[in-house]
Amino acid sequence: MMNEKNREYIEACLKCMNACNYCYVSSLKEYDLGMLKECIRLNRECADICTFTAEALSRDTAFGDEIRELCAKICDACAEECGKHEHEHCKKCAEVCRRCADILRDRRAAA
Amino acid sequence: MMNEKNREYIEACLKCMNACNYCYVSSLKEYDLGMLKECIRLNRECADICTFTAEALSRDTAFGDEIRELCAKICDACAEECGKHEHEHCKKCAEVCRRCADILRDRRAAA
Amino acid sequence: MMNEKNREYIEACLKCMNACNYCYVSSLKEYDLGMLKECIRLNRECADICTFTAEALSRDTAFGDEIRELCAKICDACAEECGKHEHEHCKKCAEVCRRCADILRDRRAAA
Amino acid sequence: MMNEKNREYIEACLKCMNACNYCYVSSLKEYDLGMLKECIRLNRECADICTFTAEALSRDTAFGDEIRELCAKICDACAEECGKHEHEHCKKCAEVCRRCADILRDRRAAA
Repeated sequence: MMNEKNREYIEACLKCMNACNYCYVSSLKEYDLGMLKECIRLNRECADICTFTAEALSRDTAFGDEIRELCAKICDACAEECGKHEHEHCKKCAEVCRRCADILRDRRAAA
Repeated sequence: MMNEKNREYIEACLKCMNACNYCYVSSLKEYDLGMLKECIRLNRECADICTFTAEALSRDTAFGDEIRELCAKICDACAEECGKHEHEHCKKCAEVCRRCADILRDRRAAA
Repeated sequence: MMNEKNREYIEACLKCMNACNYCYVSSLKEYDLGMLKECIRLNRECADICTFTAEALSRDTAFGDEIRELCAKICDACAEECGKHEHEHCKKCAEVCRRCADILRDRRAAA
Repeated sequence: MMNEKNREYIEACLKCMNACNYCYVSSLKEYDLGMLKECIRLNRECADICTFTAEALSRDTAFGDEIRELCAKICDACAEECGKHEHEHCKKCAEVCRRCADILRDRRAAA
């Protein structure tokens, strides 16, 4: 039982939250921690806004457009940062973030 | 990509968050709003703790046992309150809350 | 000990969160609940974004401008709705929301 | 305008959230990042539960006792970890966390 209108957005955000938190926990265990600082910060920031967005959309917020755009922007930043690293969790996280941003902006044609 | 150890808990919490928020929005549209006060309050409280729990577990928190127990307790309260009402959204929400509490307490044998 | 650069924003947001939650709880106890539906929804939505904004700013987010603008917009909406009601908690909440929006937009000259 | 009954708890939690987030951001800038892993994790975990607790108490939750106890427990853990490090932000954070835990457990006589 969930908000049908926003289902695709909500599911993308929750998937992205999980991927970002997974990458965050994994990054904190890596040896090259110094290189992953920005990744750690952005993982948590992206997880936070994805959770916030999913919650707001599941309550059918009147500010859906603005919240989705903010969330997509932070997903972009996290994808860009994670995309710089060779760790498997970073590469997968970048992919999930990019896909989430596309869905939030209604650009999922090619997916 | 998500925390595998906690997958079942996380998915139950996110499902419950969606059901509670759906019931919250639907309750606010009902005619008998006065009777649904406690339902409205508990829906949001349950959605909040479910979201918090899902996030914490997706980051492999060291406080998983305590957080799950708190979340299950609030799910119980929301299920009990929603269970008093005849609205379809309340009945379904009660069911999802009860199931979530069972999963969080590792009592899902009969499901 | 807190982020000094964002101190004024953070304090405004946390004050607004408290006022909105106070108005939310008080509204749920009022007799004319039907007239306060939108107030109840917006109180919680405003409290949520204010909390999110305070947290993000206390971590010196790189998305401060966008988050503050979103938060100010939701404060505006909550102020407008609360401003329609005669309850003391609504009037005070409207005032706190308006002030928070002004601070978030750096328009506090007249305050 | 805020919940008077819970004012002291709410203020302690919000102060602790700010200190933890400050310590988190500062830790991520330190040279000895490897030694601060647990500190970084616990800073964010403590900030999250403090924020959650403040919000729940500001809405006069019926689960105040349980939420305060969970929050105090996570404050304890963060204080213990931060207390191991010589950085000024860690020492101050440890102090704020310990004080928050005391307040949440109504043990502030000696403060």
